[in-house]
Parts: sequence; C-alpha cells; structure tokens
Amino acid sequence: MKKTLNIGMIGYGFMARTHSNAWRRVGNFFDLDYTPVLKTVCGLDAAEAEAFAQRWGYAKSTTDWHEVVADKEIDLIEICVPNNIHAEIAIAAAQAGKMIICEKPLALDAAQALQMTEAVEAAGLPNLASFNYRRIPAVTLAKQLIDEGRLGKIFHYRANFLQDWTISSDVPQGGMATWRLDAKAAGSGVTGDLLAHCIDLALWQNGAINSVNAMTETFVKERKNVETGKMEPVGIDDACTFFCRFDNGSLGNFESTRYARGHKALFTFEVNGEKASLAWDLHDLHRLAFFDHADGGLTRGWRTIHVTDGEHPYMSHWWVPGLAIGYEHSFVHQAADFVMSLSSGKTVGATFRDAYETQRVCDAVLQSASSGQWVNL
Amino acid sequence: MKKTLNIGMIGYGFMARTHSNAWRRVGNFFDLDYTPVLKTVCGLDAAEAEAFAQRWGYAKSTTDWHEVVADKEIDLIEICVPNNIHAEIAIAAAQAGKMIICEKPLALDAAQALQMTEAVEAAGLPNLASFNYRRIPAVTLAKQLIDEGRLGKIFHYRANFLQDWTISSDVPQGGMATWRLDAKAAGSGVTGDLLAHCIDLALWQNGAINSVNAMTETFVKERKNVETGKMEPVGIDDACTFFCRFDNGSLGNFESTRYARGHKALFTFEVNGEKASLAWDLHDLHRLAFFDHADGGLTRGWRTIHVTDGEHPYMSHWWVPGLAIGYEHSFVHQAADFVMSLSSGKTVGATFRDAYETQRVCDAVLQSASSGQWVNL
Amino acid sequence: MKKTLNIGMIGYGFMARTHSNAWRRVGNFFDLDYTPVLKTVCGLDAAEAEAFAQRWGYAKSTTDWHEVVADKEIDLIEICVPNNIHAEIAIAAAQAGKMIICEKPLALDAAQALQMTEAVEAAGLPNLASFNYRRIPAVTLAKQLIDEGRLGKIFHYRANFLQDWTISSDVPQGGMATWRLDAKAAGSGVTGDLLAHCIDLALWQNGAINSVNAMTETFVKERKNVETGKMEPVGIDDACTFFCRFDNGSLGNFESTRYARGHKALFTFEVNGEKASLAWDLHDLHRLAFFDHADGGLTRGWRTIHVTDGEHPYMSHWWVPGLAIGYEHSFVHQAADFVMSLSSGKTVGATFRDAYETQRVCDAVLQSASSGQWVNL
Amino acid sequence: MKKTLNIGMIGYGFMARTHSNAWRRVGNFFDLDYTPVLKTVCGLDAAEAEAFAQRWGYAKSTTDWHEVVADKEIDLIEICVPNNIHAEIAIAAAQAGKMIICEKPLALDAAQALQMTEAVEAAGLPNLASFNYRRIPAVTLAKQLIDEGRLGKIFHYRANFLQDWTISSDVPQGGMATWRLDAKAAGSGVTGDLLAHCIDLALWQNGAINSVNAMTETFVKERKNVETGKMEPVGIDDACTFFCRFDNGSLGNFESTRYARGHKALFTFEVNGEKASLAWDLHDLHRLAFFDHADGGLTRGWRTIHVTDGEHPYMSHWWVPGLAIGYEHSFVHQAADFVMSLSSGKTVGATFRDAYETQRVCDAVLQSASSGQWVNL
Repeated sequence: MKKTLNIGMIGYGFMARTHSNAWRRVGNFFDLDYTPVLKTVCGLDAAEAEAFAQRWGYAKSTTDWHEVVADKEIDLIEICVPNNIHAEIAIAAAQAGKMIICEKPLALDAAQALQMTEAVEAAGLPNLASFNYRRIPAVTLAKQLIDEGRLGKIFHYRANFLQDWTISSDVPQGGMATWRLDAKAAGSGVTGDLLAHCIDLALWQNGAINSVNAMTETFVKERKNVETGKMEPVGIDDACTFFCRFDNGSLGNFESTRYARGHKALFTFEVNGEKASLAWDLHDLHRLAFFDHADGGLTRGWRTIHVTDGEHPYMSHWWVPGLAIGYEHSFVHQAADFVMSLSSGKTVGATFRDAYETQRVCDAVLQSASSGQWVNL
Repeated sequence: MKKTLNIGMIGYGFMARTHSNAWRRVGNFFDLDYTPVLKTVCGLDAAEAEAFAQRWGYAKSTTDWHEVVADKEIDLIEICVPNNIHAEIAIAAAQAGKMIICEKPLALDAAQALQMTEAVEAAGLPNLASFNYRRIPAVTLAKQLIDEGRLGKIFHYRANFLQDWTISSDVPQGGMATWRLDAKAAGSGVTGDLLAHCIDLALWQNGAINSVNAMTETFVKERKNVETGKMEPVGIDDACTFFCRFDNGSLGNFESTRYARGHKALFTFEVNGEKASLAWDLHDLHRLAFFDHADGGLTRGWRTIHVTDGEHPYMSHWWVPGLAIGYEHSFVHQAADFVMSLSSGKTVGATFRDAYETQRVCDAVLQSASSGQWVNL
Repeated sequence: MKKTLNIGMIGYGFMARTHSNAWRRVGNFFDLDYTPVLKTVCGLDAAEAEAFAQRWGYAKSTTDWHEVVADKEIDLIEICVPNNIHAEIAIAAAQAGKMIICEKPLALDAAQALQMTEAVEAAGLPNLASFNYRRIPAVTLAKQLIDEGRLGKIFHYRANFLQDWTISSDVPQGGMATWRLDAKAAGSGVTGDLLAHCIDLALWQNGAINSVNAMTETFVKERKNVETGKMEPVGIDDACTFFCRFDNGSLGNFESTRYARGHKALFTFEVNGEKASLAWDLHDLHRLAFFDHADGGLTRGWRTIHVTDGEHPYMSHWWVPGLAIGYEHSFVHQAADFVMSLSSGKTVGATFRDAYETQRVCDAVLQSASSGQWVNL
Repeated sequence: MKKTLNIGMIGYGFMARTHSNAWRRVGNFFDLDYTPVLKTVCGLDAAEAEAFAQRWGYAKSTTDWHEVVADKEIDLIEICVPNNIHAEIAIAAAQAGKMIICEKPLALDAAQALQMTEAVEAAGLPNLASFNYRRIPAVTLAKQLIDEGRLGKIFHYRANFLQDWTISSDVPQGGMATWRLDAKAAGSGVTGDLLAHCIDLALWQNGAINSVNAMTETFVKERKNVETGKMEPVGIDDACTFFCRFDNGSLGNFESTRYARGHKALFTFEVNGEKASLAWDLHDLHRLAFFDHADGGLTRGWRTIHVTDGEHPYMSHWWVPGLAIGYEHSFVHQAADFVMSLSSGKTVGATFRDAYETQRVCDAVLQSASSGQWVNL
C-alpha cells in the first residue's frame, strides 16, 4: 500500500507549472512508495490561483501561504515564488515541520540562504533546492563519467548561460512576468537567475571554488516598472563574467548574459581533463559530447552521445532509444529522486546547504564585480 | 461546463503508454471543451492490464475488447495493438458508433485498410490514424512553410527511417516485444512500421505519389519465434528502398532499414524546392533546417531553427523559448487536435482515408519489390 | 639526382587548373624521385592557352593536341577537356607511348571507355582516371577502416551528390562554361558528372555492383545553346536516383541532382556495417563521422574525426593537427601517388580499367532509367 | 611588364613553410603587378637551409641573416624565427630600407614592439605582422558584416584558442620544435602565441580594449630543456583567461590553453550585437555562423554560411561554390593583399603598429594575471 505525499504549492507561475507537471507525471513513469497528492496551491490572485488549481488538479487554492504552511495534512511545501519571499516561507515551513522544495536561487544572498539552511537542518527534514538541470540525463551522465575518473585530472571547467530576451529597452521590470529584472524581487540579475545554475553544476561536478574574479554590466540603465508605471533605474546585472580557481587546481570560466542575440537559453558547460573532455548544451539537451584520448589515434574524435538508451540515466523509464525527452523531464526526475530519498533515507541534492554554497559563490562574484578584486571563498 | 470524452484503450504496450500519457497531460496544457476520462484498458493478460490501469488511472481493466467496444459509456476507442487485429476491432467499433484513434499502419494491407475506412465513413464519426510525427512542432512548421509557398516548385522529396536494433540474429520474432519482426502480426517489416511514417508525411506535405519502384531485403533469414520456441523463416522486409514520382512532378527517394548501425530512430526528411529547401530529423526533433535562396548572397546559409518559440506551432502551450519538448508531445498534440476537432467540426488528419492512401503506397512498394517493376498507383 | 616528368596538358579550363596546381605544388610537400615539368598546354584559343601557360609556368602553348601527343619530350599526357574528346586523345596518346591521366568520366559510354582501356593496357604504361575524391584524407581513411574490417559485414552503402546551380532556366547549355549541360559534349548529365564520383568510391570501398534500378528526370526541357544561340532540347539527365545490389550482399542507394536548393557540391556517403558505420560529406571534407558499436554503451556515439593529425592519410605532409586542407589537395595527393607509383612499379587507381567499370555502372543506370527495368551488370 | 619582388626569408621552420608556399602560389591565383622571387633563405643549420632552398626554389641559402638584410637585391625581409630575435632583425632590416613581413607576436613585449614599430615607420616602408587569420574568407566576411552595421551595437565579444598538445609532462621545452614552451625564446606562452591572434581579430573587428583582468596558470611546472638536457622550471603561461571592456561599451571574454583535451587548434570567436550575432571557429574554417534577428520569427535561426561562393571574400580566385580551401590559403591571401598594397599605396594590416597595440594588450593581460588587478590600457 502506497503512502501519500501531500503537497502544498506556493506560487502559480512558470516554475509552479513545471513542478506541478512533475508531480502529475512522476507516478506514471517511476515506481514509488508514495503517491503525490496535490492538496493546495497558493497565489496572490484568488481567481488565478483557483484556475491553476483546476488545471493541475489541486484540491483547493488560497491566497495566504501561512495557511498552507499551517495545514497539518500537508507534508511538503513547494516554494515557486520570487526570490525575495523564499526565506520567510521556507523558515516558517521548516518550523512547521514540513519538507521543502525551493526554487533557485535559494535566497537573495548567502546570509539569508544560511538562515534558511540552518532552519531546515534544525528541523531535520528533507529539503531540496530545485537545481533541475542536474537531472537532465546527459548532465547526469557527465557527472557519472567524471566521478568514474574517465576524465582524469581536470584542467578546465567552462560554463555559459546565454539569453537574448532583454535586449529591447521596452521590456519592463517588476510584476508577474518580469520580476526577474527587478533587483528588489530577484536580488540580482543573471548571476542569481542563470549563473546559479552554472555554479551549482560546477560545484557538483568539479568540487569547491576557492576564489573568483568577476565583471558585471547593466546595458539598459532604466526600465519602466510595471508596478509603479514609472521609469526606474535597473538594479540588476544584465551580464556577468567571472573566472575562478577550484580546489582541485582547475580553472573556471563562466559567463551569463541576456544580450546574446540568437541564444534563447543556451546553458553550456565543457570540462577538459587529462584523459578526456565532455561538453553539453541545453539547446540540444539530449546529447553529450565526449572526447576520449584513449581511443585509437586514427579514429579519435568528439562523440556525440544521443543520451536516449535504456542504460543512460533515467532513460529506462521513458521510451525507446532515439526518442528524446525534454526540459520538463528534469523536474519529473527531481520529483522521483526526492520521493525515492524518502524511502531510502539517502539525502539527494541539491540540498539547501548545497544551494547555500552556490549562493556564497554568487555573492563573491557580485562582490568581486563591485570591488574589481579577487574574492576568496 | 466541460463535456467528458470517455476513452477505451485496447492494448497496454508501448503505444498504449504514449497515448495514455497524452490523455493524462493534454488538459494541463491545452484549453479544451472536453475532459478526457480514462475508462477502460484492455489487454491479453489480466494482471498486466490491471497494473496498466492502476498506473495510468483507468477506471477498470479487461481482457476482452468486445466488452470495451460494447460499453455504452465509452465514446472513443484507441487501438494500440499489433497490426493484424486493427481491422476487426476498428470495424466493430465503427459499427458500435465509437470514435476511433488507431495506431499505424492502419492495416495489414490496403484492402483491409479500405474496409476499415469505409466502416468509419459509414459510421460518420471522427477517426484518426496515429501518424504522430505530423505534430512534432518542427514538422508542422515544415508543412506550414510548404503550404505558404516558401519553397516554390518542389523538385525533390527525400526521407529515411534508419534503425539498428535487429542486426543481431539473436533478436527473436513474435511475442509482445518483437511482434514487429513477425510477418503474421506486422504484415510487413520496415515498410509498414517505418516507411509508413515517411509516406504519410510525404503525402501530407508534397501530395500524391503516382508510381513507385522498390527493393527490399531480409538480411537475417531465420529467427527464433518467441511463441513457438523454434527457428522460423523471417517473413518481413528488414530493409526497403524505393524511389517514386509525385503528381506535382517532383521525385521521391525513400529508405528504411533496421541495419543502419549507429542510428536508433533516425527519421529524416528533406524537401528541395525552387526557392528554398528544408530538412528535419527525429534525433534532433526540435530543430528544422531551412535554406532560403532569397537571403542575400553573402549571408545565405542553412538556418537551424530551434523550434521552441511561442509563435512556433504548439509551442505557446509549453515552456519558454529555448526549452525543448520531446517525442511524447507529438501524441499530446494529436490528442489536443482531435478534441478540438470535436468542438470545431473540422476534420483533422491523418484520417483513416489518409492512412488508406499511405497503405496503398506501402502495398505498391512491396509489390514493386517483389516484381522488380514500377508500380502505378 | 631526380628524373624529370614532362607533362603535356590538354585543356585550360577548371580541371586543367586543378591539375596544374597539383604539379606546381607536389614537390614542395612530397619527396619524389621525379621533378614534374610543365612543358606544354594545349587549348582551342591560342591567346587563352598562352595566358594559361604564363600563369602556370608551362614552357609553351599550342592549339593542336596532336602536336603535344607527338612531342617526343613529353612523358605524360593530361586530358582535361570535355568528355566527348577524351577517347580520341587518349587512344592516340597511348599509341604514342605516353602515360595518361584523364579526367572523369573516362568516356561518353562504356564501349568507348573499353576502347580506351584496351589501348592503354596494350601500351603497358601507367594510366589514371582522375577520381580525385579518393584522395581526400577523410575518404582515404574511410577506405582504410573498411579494409581493416572495422565495419564488419556491410549492409548499406548510400551516396548523394547534390548541387543547385542549374535551377534557373536561364542557365544555357554548351560552350566553355556550360558544356556539362550539353549531351553531345558531356554524354550524360549528373550521372557521368557526379554519380560517376559516387560510383567510383562505392566500387573502391565496397566492391562490385551486380544490378541497378534507376530513375532520371530532366526538369528544364529546353535551354539556349551558347554555340548556336538557339533554344534547344536538353538531352542530359538533371537528376538521377538509383538503388542497387553489391556482390557482398549490401544494398546501395544513390542520388544526384542539380536541383537541390542550398547544396553546392554536397557529395556524401555513408556505410553501415555490422560493427560500425561511417559517413562523410564534401562540404566538411576534413571530417569523418564514425560510429563504433564496440564502444561502451554509456558513451557510444558518432565520433566526428577531424582528419588533420599526422597519422591520418597524407596529413604528415601538410601542417599541424587542427589545420585543415581543402579540395585542391586531393589533386596534389593524386599527383604524388601517381609519381610514387612510377618509382615503386605498383599500380595506383583509379586506373582506366577501374573507370571503365564505373562507366559500365553509369551505362546500366541510364539504361535502367530508360527501360524502367532492373539492369544486371 | 611585371616588376619583381625579391624576397629574403629568415627562418626555415613551420612558418617559413607557410610563407614560402604563399609566395609560390599567389601568382597562380591572383593577378599582381609584381612577380615574387624567392632569393635567399637563412637559417642556423647550413644543410637544412640549403634543403629548404631546394624544396621551395630559393636561389640560395645562408646561415647569416645580416647577409640577407645587407643584400641590395632583396626588397622584402620575411621574419619567421622565434620571437626573441624578431626585434634585432626587424630593426636592422628597416634601417637597411627593406619592406618587412614579421611573424606574430611582433616581439617579446610591447616596449620592444614599439621600438620595431618606430623603426619601420621611420623607414617609411611597407610592414606587416602576420596575423594570417584575418584572411580566412569567413573571418574577413565577419569583419565586413560588422563594418556594414549588420550587428548593430555590439554587446559581447568572446574568443577562445584551445589546444591540447602540451598535456603530457614529457613534452620538452626549447629547441627547434618546442621553443614555444621556452620563456626565453617565446616571451610568453599561450598569451603571445595564441591569444595574440584572438586579440588582433578583436581589435580589428570590435575596436580598442580599455581595460583587462586576467588569470594565468602553468600546469606543468618543470620540463626538460632540449638544449641543456636538464629539467628546468617552465616560465610560460600554459593557460590564460581574461575578460575586458572595449571602448564601444561591449564586454570581452577570452581564453586560451594548451590543456583542452580534444581540441587541436580550436580558435573561436563569437560576436553578439543588438541586431545580429556571428560565430566562427578554425576547425571548420570555411563556415561562418550568422543569426539575423530581422529574419521572420517563424524561420529565424543560426545560419551556417559555407563561405565558398564567388562573391565571398577571396573566393572568386579559387574553385567553385561548395569546394573548400584551407588554412594555408590565409597566407596566400596575405601575400596577395601585401603585393596589391604596393601597387595601390593603400596600407594593409596588421601593420607593425597594429601588432604593437595587440602586444600592449598581451602585456596588460600578463601584468593583470601577475598582480591580480584590473589593468588599464
């Protein structure tokens, strides 16, 4: 007999859709000891919250997140709201004894992230920061190959996250659709929104970063604020580049921008090791590029692995070789791994503490960009 | 108030999964006038059928398809079983006044397909053959560009469907997993299983074929039959190549095989027109290649369109630009289009008649391969 | 002390440039026992022939090829003129005891090719048909991998040669620049001009073809003849598709057209074997795609081999790894191999007899297209 | 009547080969007012110098470069020797009234580069630093598109130069083949050898850099010195990453390493502008990627331009569309442009002054890496 996992969702935006979809689907594809049940969705606008509940099958909706956190029936709080309200909700949920899955970046800054981390650790309950890209099969495979030592000593780690959606100065800031451009809601720009993903994967795959040196730029200095209707200074970083040193001696180079015309969500990473290299990008997320120096010289070359075989991570749960899955499946895998961790008792990441480490790097990056100096971690 | 659409699923194999998943998801992403309800799933093994029902949320399971067809509550019969039992079920379902969605190829041969087509047309109810690839956004976009005249006069249509899963002579024939290698169950080999997809898209995008000339081969002559346990002659075509002439004056070249080492499900097509060309393949299904001769000479080149923008077919229902969807979404789109056609009264294809036309081409191909002669349609 | 190899060039068009360039360069990059000396160039227009001689360093020019063939000092006759005058020159040169390198296709048809072949074989002197693509390093590497058995049993051989330069009906036929569209000068259209290359590589890499089945089309029925100034029927094939069976049991699929918008010179081949597959195309001629099933399942994928390492065929003679060479180098390699064969006494292909075999396939293809029947070889 | 251009070549290594080849070929493909004549080659070893002279057609050889510089007949001195002897030769040649083409980087540092620049400017004679990649047709096309304003305001300039040939600690330093690893001969490691190319293109395409921030690393700390036979500390940078700001407000990100397993000579650049973006890499040097936001939304995508058409830069001098040229042709184009500048009187770059500007950036990069601070230019 399966146990139920009762879920309270805070938020009804883009991320709430990806998470709700994951819960709706995970049981069709993974054999779990728990049945996820969508109990309550919470959002600012009552009608929209109720429409979301109808669409996704939540038993009810509300506009007050305290009510969800206080609900005895709910086991797991999902936090899918702007960054500036993560901490308050997460800490309350932890104190109420709830498991938590929180969207990234965990907080506005590392100090806040640490508070949240300490709260969930004090509660002693499962907690997860939604760094979903870890669970794209090709990305998971990359991690596996690195952990197996297939690359040998690592020399270089390189990652980009390139977009182009804010090039026009007519794009506003603030509000439901564009809170990511509003420093008050988002904390930072591309650093927290996009580089956080790059950093999470880097720490996971390549270990700790010990020092960073960064540059940021805000290309459009003023944007209309949707909430005030006025032109206001833009407080976020439109672009951020940094290089760094990892504890393992390798060098990192990271860049993110929303001004790279032609790239929609081009998250890439490449790792160069003594024995082998690998590379991936989100636009062709089902492929992993792999170069193995051990291959015979005549036929050595970059392999493009179509990560759709049954023996590839997660793929035995889906279709047949050659048939790709997409972006949303990373959230299904996250949901599956989270639920399986409840059964196994084995922690899965990214935990809040992992996310706090990422936030420390983000803070160091922004501090370095501001001071023009190297910052040690 | 939404109407319900009660569904009876015949089959619990691979295709039953893709279709069930489509029904479970379509309402989350498309605003429809009907709520799909999974009523009954039917399959040979009672325990497996019930497990399937549990997993996908069917209200009940059965081992007798007649019972499903006779069920007054059921509006729509889904046929996801081996090809040799399509006709019997479809004709009974039509006579019982059910809407039908049937997996492809529609039948074992064109004569049978015609009987089925006449049955559903006599019933006057919506019917669809599941040529799901029409509804990959990049494929739909290709159709749209052709229909807009962007390619001008068409000279060439080229399509392949390459796999490699039957190279080993240890792969058996017959049974649940390998009925596609058994001529009795499948009717033909790659022609009906794979080229049928190529032909459906070709007829849809480029119009009627008037003559074909084909070659087939069976590389492995004997395989163990799972059901009898004996080595038996292989009756299917392992590989099939044909060229043809379309009514519009263009030339076609088609090939399919399960002996193309390195290709899992490499369905490709390319269309060359006077003004422009386009190309697509299933391994990178979210991209469409497009060459427009009208581009200035200095910067003319094949464009790789990442078909993930809101204005691309179907994509406004999913995530944001740059984030790919996968194979299974073609079935969700098919379900959405089918349900919307119930509201609009506008027929959507591939209808049974469309599928009959495809089957006529398949028959002509096999006949030509057998006779070594051109066959007119 | 090096010997000299005195060369008489018949023709001053595109191919005469590629061959002259080869002779000018080969000694800089290959250590040869012979010094090639450009003695005479011959062409219809005296002024143009002399300009060509000046540019490329020929000692003199003439308008009478008989004079070149009769010249006692000349060792090697290069035939780089339209196809319809290959035979006459080649037979005369053979009778005069000259070595010969002749552009492809060898002749207007197989009967003529056989006469030429018999003439050079009677003379017992080195002879070569200029199927230059054999000597693109990636193509040579493909041959080497096949010969080593890396692919195992071959199932499929596929080749295309796609161009788009004759789509406009304003392109004329006949004359210096467009004799390839004039059946009298060219013999055939894409079959002799382009498919001959595909067939030569196929026979070389995959062995004999025993039967073919073909379709041809002439899309533009009339073109102005440059020489007569009148619109005249087009006698060549604009497009040709054929499939075939090889002696080794594998299936072939070939296509060529000059109506594939967006492709300039897209010569491609792909070979699928039991153990491995490989693929190549002329637009990225320095790469070979290779899929090896023996690679571990997790990291199996198509490798893109950048064929620029010192151990790759011919590449030790050029630059350093990563630095590509181009189209013209295939002719330099041909010149080098030819000269080295003079030293070693080992025949190098494609010989006239090899080219005769290719011409037999071309004839069979055209005959099949005409009759609509399979043609055995 | 053509004038002669008498050339004295200092060096007989890799670069002397590329330059000699350029002079041997340029007249075959470009109509020039001057006939280049290879007069003298100079190198340390008399036998090797003479062998080089024989191979490439130099009238004579010598071991004393002063003799070449003093030779009244010589018009142009080519400097293709290790970086530490560029300055002495160049200054002497300038004082002797010779035109000069010098390999890059121009000097060991900017101070030395300035001396050389002042010397050639005082002499008032044509001078060129051999930044050959400017003259790859796809790179020249990129420059042309930027200059036409096709990209609009530039936001980002990104360039890498990745190699992997020094990963093994068995690779020695010093000597003829590996002087690039010896700080005394090379001045720096990847910064002068590889990033100099990236910086030259960046300054040419995107204008001046005003500040840089860099990190370098030496992964292998000791290597055997070929000349002394002893293990010695490695003084060069094995890897270098820097970001920067351009005068036009755009941000730069540059990286080079010889420890990127799988990359032989992967020189890449990408430019992101308001209206369009473009990207290129040396491994597929005949292609330019171009994304034009002005393309209609449905069919917008990265174009891969096969830069082989007659209207593309330099390509009318070579073969026909679709047929690629290679690395060495950049030197032929450089020779052609240099000679044409003698006729036209119009200076072509990179001049010594351009190369001095590149060297200033290199110095700033190394200084920043050393100090850990931003360095202004």
